[in-house]
Amino acid sequence: MAVKMSSIDIKAREKAVKVLHEKFRELAEKILRGEEPKLIIPKRTLSNTIYDSERKILLLGNDTFERSFLDVRESRKFMQTLLMASIIYEALLNNEYPTIRDLYYRGKHTIRYRDYKGRTVEENTWDEQKESDSVLRDIEVYTNLLREEMLILSKEKGKVVGDMRIRSGDDIIDLSKMGHGAYAIEPTPDLIEFIDVNAEFVLVVEKDAVFQQLHRAGFWRKYKAILVTSAGQPDRATRRFVRRLNEELGLPVYILTDADPYGWYIYSVFKIGSITLSYESERLATPKALFLGVSMTDIFGDKETGKKPYLSEVERRNFIIKAKKADIKRAQELMNYEWFKTPRWQKELKIFLEKKSKLEIEALTGKGLKFLMDTYIPQKINSGDWID
Amino acid sequence: MAVKMSSIDIKAREKAVKVLHEKFRELAEKILRGEEPKLIIPKRTLSNTIYDSERKILLLGNDTFERSFLDVRESRKFMQTLLMASIIYEALLNNEYPTIRDLYYRGKHTIRYRDYKGRTVEENTWDEQKESDSVLRDIEVYTNLLREEMLILSKEKGKVVGDMRIRSGDDIIDLSKMGHGAYAIEPTPDLIEFIDVNAEFVLVVEKDAVFQQLHRAGFWRKYKAILVTSAGQPDRATRRFVRRLNEELGLPVYILTDADPYGWYIYSVFKIGSITLSYESERLATPKALFLGVSMTDIFGDKETGKKPYLSEVERRNFIIKAKKADIKRAQELMNYEWFKTPRWQKELKIFLEKKSKLEIEALTGKGLKFLMDTYIPQKINSGDWID
Repeated sequence: MAVKMSSIDIKAREKAVKVLHEKFRELAEKILRGEEPKLIIPKRTLSNTIYDSERKILLLGNDTFERSFLDVRESRKFMQTLLMASIIYEALLNNEYPTIRDLYYRGKHTIRYRDYKGRTVEENTWDEQKESDSVLRDIEVYTNLLREEMLILSKEKGKVVGDMRIRSGDDIIDLSKMGHGAYAIEPTPDLIEFIDVNAEFVLVVEKDAVFQQLHRAGFWRKYKAILVTSAGQPDRATRRFVRRLNEELGLPVYILTDADPYGWYIYSVFKIGSITLSYESERLATPKALFLGVSMTDIFGDKETGKKPYLSEVERRNFIIKAKKADIKRAQELMNYEWFKTPRWQKELKIFLEKKSKLEIEALTGKGLKFLMDTYIPQKINSGDWID
Repeated sequence: MAVKMSSIDIKAREKAVKVLHEKFRELAEKILRGEEPKLIIPKRTLSNTIYDSERKILLLGNDTFERSFLDVRESRKFMQTLLMASIIYEALLNNEYPTIRDLYYRGKHTIRYRDYKGRTVEENTWDEQKESDSVLRDIEVYTNLLREEMLILSKEKGKVVGDMRIRSGDDIIDLSKMGHGAYAIEPTPDLIEFIDVNAEFVLVVEKDAVFQQLHRAGFWRKYKAILVTSAGQPDRATRRFVRRLNEELGLPVYILTDADPYGWYIYSVFKIGSITLSYESERLATPKALFLGVSMTDIFGDKETGKKPYLSEVERRNFIIKAKKADIKRAQELMNYEWFKTPRWQKELKIFLEKKSKLEIEALTGKGLKFLMDTYIPQKINSGDWID
């Protein structure tokens, strides 16, 4: 019994096969011509990672490196790169959906050869997944295809509800008809088609439990929102999905996290990108995303602007958690990131380092879900009390 | 602008309010009559946790304890219990959906009183969430209401797809029309109504990434399955949902995990329940759940029965991971659990301890997704090669 492949996936496969074929054809031709086979790949090093303050995202610079077969220091990496490319290419042709863990297993084997002294030597293609992952990233930057475009899947935590219809695979899904559950975003969100949307903004909530509460209480319906959760540190699919909501539908994106350096970094990953994987940012980052809260001035107020705190002194005493050493260290690191060097963020981080206090979103629902839903969030949005 | 409450939730609230009111009314009456207020609560200790080998689940025994207000060692716990009950009761009346973290924050405050020497003393209602969680569990066993029945929400990782229609809230959801995404199960799965189902079994996959692959390749359609993932250690909602699929729809449930003690424990939690929270098992465990794999005999074969391994020697060399000390220790613990004392499980654990080898499901998709989907899973099911 054959299974009908989704027409969307068939198209995606055809595109990826074509790009891969094109990109590696040159190499094969070089070999046939008797020339030295080598690949020229953009560098993914930190020194080639640039913060573009105009576009507000992290980008790869123009540095490249050569990966050459005839260089002894390079030949292992060269072999790994071609091995990975061929595994992906075959998976595409065979209608497979490998994960990055699969790719590691598929390529993992022992090569036996004779060295120049005639001795038999054994060498593994790779030992750890971090080796195969690194090679996969090289292929992503070399082909300019994200792994999702090569139908490589991964686990996926993001969820969404809202008054919106999408097409995924061959189905049309009404995200306003999910009952008390939610729609779990697919690992390849570029293949989603937005059909129609009736919403004024996107609210991204770090915590799944808070998402559940706002969903259940009808937040998205009442305030015409698309409600998304990343369930902690966002994965690639959730980031890409949010970016598309912002870029293609023009919806403002507000991010709601705990008031601590971990929460602020989640915001930063949504907005700017991940520092070590800057090549993804151009596709995955949402430079226009706004930090809605919870901010330090929400907790303590701001004498400078006359802003009143959302918590009373008694509530602060009951709800605030003392920052740990790791939080302090993380906040000091954030202070030095280019994109946190705005007056608003520097103020936030200074208050944090001075008060050594953090707060969870749940402290706000602890005051009552209605407070979070009908006071805090709408007031912050309506008065423009977010941080860019 | 008012939000329409789901009619399902309104009914659930009414029921929980009634039970809570009934259970605590006696206490109030005692106080009004001038009698000593005390609660009689089933013990949740390990010594009162019994493995019922007939029903194949963990259960609470008949031991109870008294929580009395006029006993100095008890009065703090007594106060906490009534505080928690009143917070839940109010949340129900106010159409709230608290999380266990919220309940912690809502109750957390400082009580100031004069001790018998006239000194002012300060005492926190509770300091850590584990204190408030423990009190919540007491209320669960005292009222015989699971927290979900009191509309207490939590984060939720479980997902499902399959040829099945359900009602959740006021929506009807077709789980066969989720595109490449999936339906994220609600935190209160008892409120789901099964409308119709066209499936022959339930396959629960530990790993979300493997779920994504099987879903994308059309596994559930081809083999008439309801496909579920717990995305790691299963949460309560996923366990309850799977139990209902088995109990109410009569669908056999097969569990697919990594071949390691962590995976076997996931199976054990689905089937028997969680050791420290045995009072949940009566509702959340699926005693008929079957362990489909990956088993040690799948990897190494079984000379005794003539079973051939699913992996060649080369594949074993490439795919097997060496067990860590913690794995060995965990396996030794599992060997002593009553429900692992069957000949089949003892054999599995012995092979594991002898070979000190574990294997991930991804090693099977590493052999090709088609192998996992069209050979391994159907062959295991059709030949009855599971472990009870």
